[in-house]
Amino acid sequence: MSTSATSSASPAMREALRETAEKLFADIRELSFDGVGVTRESYGRRETETGDYLAAFAQSQGLTVSHDRAGNYIFSNPGLAPEQPAIWVGSHIDSVPQGGNFDGLAGVIAGLLCQVSGQHSAAPLRTIAFRGEESAWFGKAYLGSSALFGKISAADLELVQRSSGQTLDECMASVGADMAAIRAGEPLFDKKQVLAYLELHIEQGPVMIARDLPLAAVNGIRGNIRHNRIECLGEAQHSGVVPRWLRRDAMFAVSDLIMRLDAHWKELLERGIDLVVTAGIVQTDPAEHSISRIPGQVSFSLEARSKSADTLEAFYQLVQAELQAVGKERGVRFVTDRRLRSDPATMHPRVCQVLMAACAALGVAHDSIPSGAGHDASLFANAGIPSGMLFVRNQNGSHNPHEAMEMDDFLLGVHALSEAIHTLGSDL
Amino acid sequence: MSTSATSSASPAMREALRETAEKLFADIRELSFDGVGVTRESYGRRETETGDYLAAFAQSQGLTVSHDRAGNYIFSNPGLAPEQPAIWVGSHIDSVPQGGNFDGLAGVIAGLLCQVSGQHSAAPLRTIAFRGEESAWFGKAYLGSSALFGKISAADLELVQRSSGQTLDECMASVGADMAAIRAGEPLFDKKQVLAYLELHIEQGPVMIARDLPLAAVNGIRGNIRHNRIECLGEAQHSGVVPRWLRRDAMFAVSDLIMRLDAHWKELLERGIDLVVTAGIVQTDPAEHSISRIPGQVSFSLEARSKSADTLEAFYQLVQAELQAVGKERGVRFVTDRRLRSDPATMHPRVCQVLMAACAALGVAHDSIPSGAGHDASLFANAGIPSGMLFVRNQNGSHNPHEAMEMDDFLLGVHALSEAIHTLGSDL
Repeated sequence: MSTSATSSASPAMREALRETAEKLFADIRELSFDGVGVTRESYGRRETETGDYLAAFAQSQGLTVSHDRAGNYIFSNPGLAPEQPAIWVGSHIDSVPQGGNFDGLAGVIAGLLCQVSGQHSAAPLRTIAFRGEESAWFGKAYLGSSALFGKISAADLELVQRSSGQTLDECMASVGADMAAIRAGEPLFDKKQVLAYLELHIEQGPVMIARDLPLAAVNGIRGNIRHNRIECLGEAQHSGVVPRWLRRDAMFAVSDLIMRLDAHWKELLERGIDLVVTAGIVQTDPAEHSISRIPGQVSFSLEARSKSADTLEAFYQLVQAELQAVGKERGVRFVTDRRLRSDPATMHPRVCQVLMAACAALGVAHDSIPSGAGHDASLFANAGIPSGMLFVRNQNGSHNPHEAMEMDDFLLGVHALSEAIHTLGSDL
Repeated sequence: MSTSATSSASPAMREALRETAEKLFADIRELSFDGVGVTRESYGRRETETGDYLAAFAQSQGLTVSHDRAGNYIFSNPGLAPEQPAIWVGSHIDSVPQGGNFDGLAGVIAGLLCQVSGQHSAAPLRTIAFRGEESAWFGKAYLGSSALFGKISAADLELVQRSSGQTLDECMASVGADMAAIRAGEPLFDKKQVLAYLELHIEQGPVMIARDLPLAAVNGIRGNIRHNRIECLGEAQHSGVVPRWLRRDAMFAVSDLIMRLDAHWKELLERGIDLVVTAGIVQTDPAEHSISRIPGQVSFSLEARSKSADTLEAFYQLVQAELQAVGKERGVRFVTDRRLRSDPATMHPRVCQVLMAACAALGVAHDSIPSGAGHDASLFANAGIPSGMLFVRNQNGSHNPHEAMEMDDFLLGVHALSEAIHTLGSDL
């Protein structure tokens, strides 16, 4: 049975797989439709209904259904003992409010399809459907996988669900999670059980559409360094009466800073460095700004993301240097709030290579690209587990009802994933 | 009676003048105090209360009170026939929101003090208290004097007051202005009635404090070209997933524009060109901005000021070129609202000389300097009326509650103004 990938399956089998995929997506869309998009609340009713629907499907296909100690769903190949090491395929089943149907769900369905297509029984395989991946509900992301690794803090457990007002502690308890262990920060499983972690996900950016790539292997997941609020303090003065050399214009200073960072960014890209830089919120002070007033205060957010922790730190040093330089040159002062940092994650080179080879075997245009958004896979990679991600082309980004993944692209992804599992199963 | 200036008045008379000045400023500050600074809305309640208070004072002193056809207040020397040519002293009685008490009001009170000090009955004299000088309320300045010269357009009349939402047309009508004539763009008076126009005003910049000059004659007034609102339209996207080359970041585009204009500005200054450039209001869209979102929309104001009309037009062409260039380079689009322009003005050399001589006669340090801010005096100068302005030293700029004109400096200004009126009256 450990023969070829699903790609080499008969036309009839491939058609059956497509029909199954379409039915799963359609049924779950229907059960979580909110009138605009889909809503599957982290640790909430529709997330559970989605998990239960998938569990019923898995059971009907002869898979073993269980829950881990964090309340996530686990679907295991028949005959796989509970503690037996296996390749894990995972993603999440929650969604943002009024979100799209594919973000997260595609990866779980892909795992199940690899299992039920019956091509790879030789590789011990589990699909894990995570709860609580989206930060939209509790203000923090990757809750289901973080719990598994013992990384939910006491402060996290007090976070409140945006609509129900219940705490994360209450919500996790309600789905049967082992709260004593979670509160104690204990890892909830032995990571030796995971031979490799694979996650298929829709691309949330425009790169694959722009480059006409149906599939891509993810080489790393960007981390970020942020200041939610930096204040530039200059001097508010009448716009007509102060010559350039006497100005302390906070808006010209912030523009100068942004252009200096843009120039550094451009140069770093030319040297092959992975980096994106964003100032998402910029505002002169509404209490005092006016058309004929030199802005005395501008507040702004600043975020840098990179696959490389070194790049993040080096760029942060550049930001510091430019804040100083602009401040000195333009007579302003920058006041920064607390620096926030999320660690980047590197995907395992061998897993990445296997995913690339699987795409190549299918004759599909592909490349290896970074993931700008975060994923549960980061937790596995940073725990030292060989991890990889496969992106499927998707139009219109994510976190909105307009996600548009083509079913053909998805099935190519399932086939590539299946091929990769096959290869990794032979490696192990 | 056509003897000396008030400066040569007796100590008792000078003390009385000071007490009158202090009382007028204090009473009007009280009636227009808003808890932070003063607020006298253009064509609004507290502007009218200020005008009415001054009218009552003028009447108590034997002056004739009337309104022109634009709703401005006119205080005439006793016995001056309505159409009789006279020297006009004027300034405005409105203020910006939470502004200072001296900007505008000082010039009106100075005119009244020249009239009531009784030193210069030989010179036919009127004080005019303009409404609607501050652009803060309707987005356009010099409304009261523009109306007088038939320079209010149909589009101007549709401008909306920032707090009440009423149109300028409605507001001007409510203070008894001749709307039929204003709508027709007719001049509302015969400019031959004005032998000369004089305006005393606090300096709104830092030059006189820095140079220790209590008084200065203004040699020219900067004009300006403005857009109250330019929208930069890019594309809002997830900050982590879109590489630099696929971004249409509205904030980076606006920063780029501002820095390009700054570079041009710097070069033009090196060639001796008079210019200041300001973006007073800049905002990402609060309805959709977020720290992890590339801004899809930024709105901003843009203003250039110069003593030279040619510079204004040339710089405006540069702005147009850079809007195009940045738009093309960064994949954004700029949408501009109506262009507003105020003409620069040159003060009359003889009037300027007379004001300088009056300062010299008082033994006060003085010089002739440009005005960066615009004033009603521009309209008179550009109509061919011999016009001049006298600046009084003032700390902390204007358009804020911290304006700090010393009463000693103000009284020196009143004396110099009185002296100049005397001289000009003899000239005529």
